[in-house]
Amino acid sequence: MTITGVNSNVLKKGDPEPSAPAAGTYRLYNMRFCPWAERALIYLSAKGVPTEVVNIHLMEKPEWYFKKHYQGKVPALEHDGRIVIESGVIPEYLDDLLPENRFLLSDPYEKAQQKLLLERLSVVVPAFYGLFSLIKDASAKEEKLGNLKKALDEAEQLLQHEFFSGSKAGYVDFLIFPFFERIWWVSDIAGFAFPSPDHPKVAKWFKATSELPEIARVIQPLEKGHLFIKSYADGKPDYDV
Amino acid sequence: MTITGVNSNVLKKGDPEPSAPAAGTYRLYNMRFCPWAERALIYLSAKGVPTEVVNIHLMEKPEWYFKKHYQGKVPALEHDGRIVIESGVIPEYLDDLLPENRFLLSDPYEKAQQKLLLERLSVVVPAFYGLFSLIKDASAKEEKLGNLKKALDEAEQLLQHEFFSGSKAGYVDFLIFPFFERIWWVSDIAGFAFPSPDHPKVAKWFKATSELPEIARVIQPLEKGHLFIKSYADGKPDYDV
Repeated sequence: MTITGVNSNVLKKGDPEPSAPAAGTYRLYNMRFCPWAERALIYLSAKGVPTEVVNIHLMEKPEWYFKKHYQGKVPALEHDGRIVIESGVIPEYLDDLLPENRFLLSDPYEKAQQKLLLERLSVVVPAFYGLFSLIKDASAKEEKLGNLKKALDEAEQLLQHEFFSGSKAGYVDFLIFPFFERIWWVSDIAGFAFPSPDHPKVAKWFKATSELPEIARVIQPLEKGHLFIKSYADGKPDYDV
Repeated sequence: MTITGVNSNVLKKGDPEPSAPAAGTYRLYNMRFCPWAERALIYLSAKGVPTEVVNIHLMEKPEWYFKKHYQGKVPALEHDGRIVIESGVIPEYLDDLLPENRFLLSDPYEKAQQKLLLERLSVVVPAFYGLFSLIKDASAKEEKLGNLKKALDEAEQLLQHEFFSGSKAGYVDFLIFPFFERIWWVSDIAGFAFPSPDHPKVAKWFKATSELPEIARVIQPLEKGHLFIKSYADGKPDYDV
């Protein structure tokens, strides 16, 4: 296991800045329940590089954190005196930096198609945020569940192999999984079934992907996801749940 | 001059599909006034590869065009039996395919920083669309001009060299230029000054960039931009203006 600190308590305003990561090691500034940061976390896990996770309190950010990310958001990746931010940039950066174990395909055409597939699948992102809003406000429930159904129909149709990236999980799977995972967390609370036999290929993919060792070792259990989602909807996110 | 058809009339519903581009040549499905498609157009021009531009009527799309782009949008790039879509994907695809003349830097860290810079600069995109809406509806004018000012302040601060990409124009400049160009088109109509001495570095950059041969040879003159913008605001876009 090369990843430490996945469940470490958040650092917040007033907490001192940790010293720089050792040469050749990676530090991910994260928040355990953030789907965007989870993309980078899964990528680092899959790369198998020595990684320390530092969780950040996103409501009371440490002052020094704005030196890592100009907006104070997560994820941010720090290593060897360099910082790279943004969940859409870090994975490709890691593939460029560590090409011996890359997930975004290197053939120009295949690479472009993977990016386009991720973009098409990203219909699940607004569908998830719509669902999430149902926890506080049940109005327009039918419409929001309808949007989810449309997004899942699209995903079902786009899933042409065992994984979105092909016969092996890769770039597309790693970057989209966190949003499906959160749909799963919200499903019980908001009263719908996910995964469901209505989308059998997606259901099978979701199970297989969540059981991949590189993912299983860094994700949060369902019950913690529930608790966090509820605390967040109440306006008092419990980052250390 | 390796680019043909930049000002060709649009193809629309009922028009036959052109035969496939010759081996080794590129075809860009474009609309002369679309800022997103212009990113790909500038990139192809800068690459210097033989390119045919086919303009598409976006209100009455040819039936066959949906085989090129599943949503019928522009840009789409066709070459050697392959199609790649999306303005955020085509430039990097061209750099990967034709690496001897690349604009997105190949060093992993520099490449990541260029993408992040483009993302930060993209505050000008919603600022432009806000301005554009002023042509039809002058309400909230102060707010929209305020948003533009904030976006241009940000750009002014981010411009640390002669070009956003460094001492030479590159990826960031080519992808963001079309939005500054449209701010320029709208500026007269909506009653504000751009380029302006309030943002001297951006003003100098805008002039230098618009005069680069690879850009100057493919962009539309100001008066055509005006006419198109007005026709579009009237709900009857004149694609062949």
